[in-house]
Amino acid sequence: MAEPIDAHLIEALVQTESVWRGRFLDVRRDTVALPSGVHTTREYIVHPGAVMVVPLLPDGRLVMERQFRHPMGRVMLEFPAGKIDAGEAPFTCAVRELAEETGYRAAEWARAGVLHNAIAYSTEGIEIWFARGLTAGPAQLDAGEFLDVVAHTATELDALCASGEVTDAKTLIGLLWLQKWQAGQWPIMWQALSVLS
Amino acid sequence: MAEPIDAHLIEALVQTESVWRGRFLDVRRDTVALPSGVHTTREYIVHPGAVMVVPLLPDGRLVMERQFRHPMGRVMLEFPAGKIDAGEAPFTCAVRELAEETGYRAAEWARAGVLHNAIAYSTEGIEIWFARGLTAGPAQLDAGEFLDVVAHTATELDALCASGEVTDAKTLIGLLWLQKWQAGQWPIMWQALSVLS
Repeated sequence: MAEPIDAHLIEALVQTESVWRGRFLDVRRDTVALPSGVHTTREYIVHPGAVMVVPLLPDGRLVMERQFRHPMGRVMLEFPAGKIDAGEAPFTCAVRELAEETGYRAAEWARAGVLHNAIAYSTEGIEIWFARGLTAGPAQLDAGEFLDVVAHTATELDALCASGEVTDAKTLIGLLWLQKWQAGQWPIMWQALSVLS
Repeated sequence: MAEPIDAHLIEALVQTESVWRGRFLDVRRDTVALPSGVHTTREYIVHPGAVMVVPLLPDGRLVMERQFRHPMGRVMLEFPAGKIDAGEAPFTCAVRELAEETGYRAAEWARAGVLHNAIAYSTEGIEIWFARGLTAGPAQLDAGEFLDVVAHTATELDALCASGEVTDAKTLIGLLWLQKWQAGQWPIMWQALSVLS
């Protein structure tokens, strides 16, 4: 959080305005007072937050998705992820999205952290969860959701990131967390599904 | 790019509509045909793209910034970055943003890759550049831009990312690229400023 020592950096909210609201995007334009006292505007998306899951198969491979992303105009390779529903706990969202999109249920879960993917213009935070002890089941995609479930080894994913074939930010950060955890450098605490639910 | 094999994933553009345009955000709502043929809408931001710089001081420390981010409501620790101006080459943007925001000029540059930070709702791509052979000079902040320039060792940054104090996605990916390059795993090609300019 901002310390008093940051008074020379902090902007103060003067007024908030909802300027456009669609089916998905909620666009705000706030007036803020800069540290100098001058007023300016900040335009951004209010986002409910999201969860990404790094799902580990018993053989060490990672469950991933190939999905067409309209703003990119192409199919992207990603870790499973999805938006948090109103009032939903992030962990509940993680379990739900993994099951809906891939069919997998996990016996053990660990929260790694959170990432903020567009700090200049979105409130979105993506919680990063690991899942293991996977059992396969039927996916239950939302109407209008089309994706392929695939599996890659960590070595394959590493190579796809190094070569620029994977460019999705959350997925790159999933690889970072995975390799740090595997190297024993960034610990995560596994908990049974029954404890977390 | 999408292969014919991905016909079961690909959405086709039917119509594009500009729904709100501010000083910074350009919001579109496109109608697309899903692989099933059903029409739906996709709402997203059209973004000019951005560049992030991972600047290496002679002693190995990294030049970073502390900046208040209104959508986050707090000061964030980040690598220097900025939006590409109309018609500007990404490398030119990298040199300009590093100089404007931190005052540093770099003798050698290397392009690591690109990341896409909000593939569900923004066209933004952030090119990742490394810079070394730094010489200090005066920063030239835009009017309304307030930030602190700081320096951290890679070990310090690693600890700040592991603990959750650094959550900015581009900065986490900057750490990933930095450590992969330092480990000799993800090569980057250094070029003199004079060659690139």
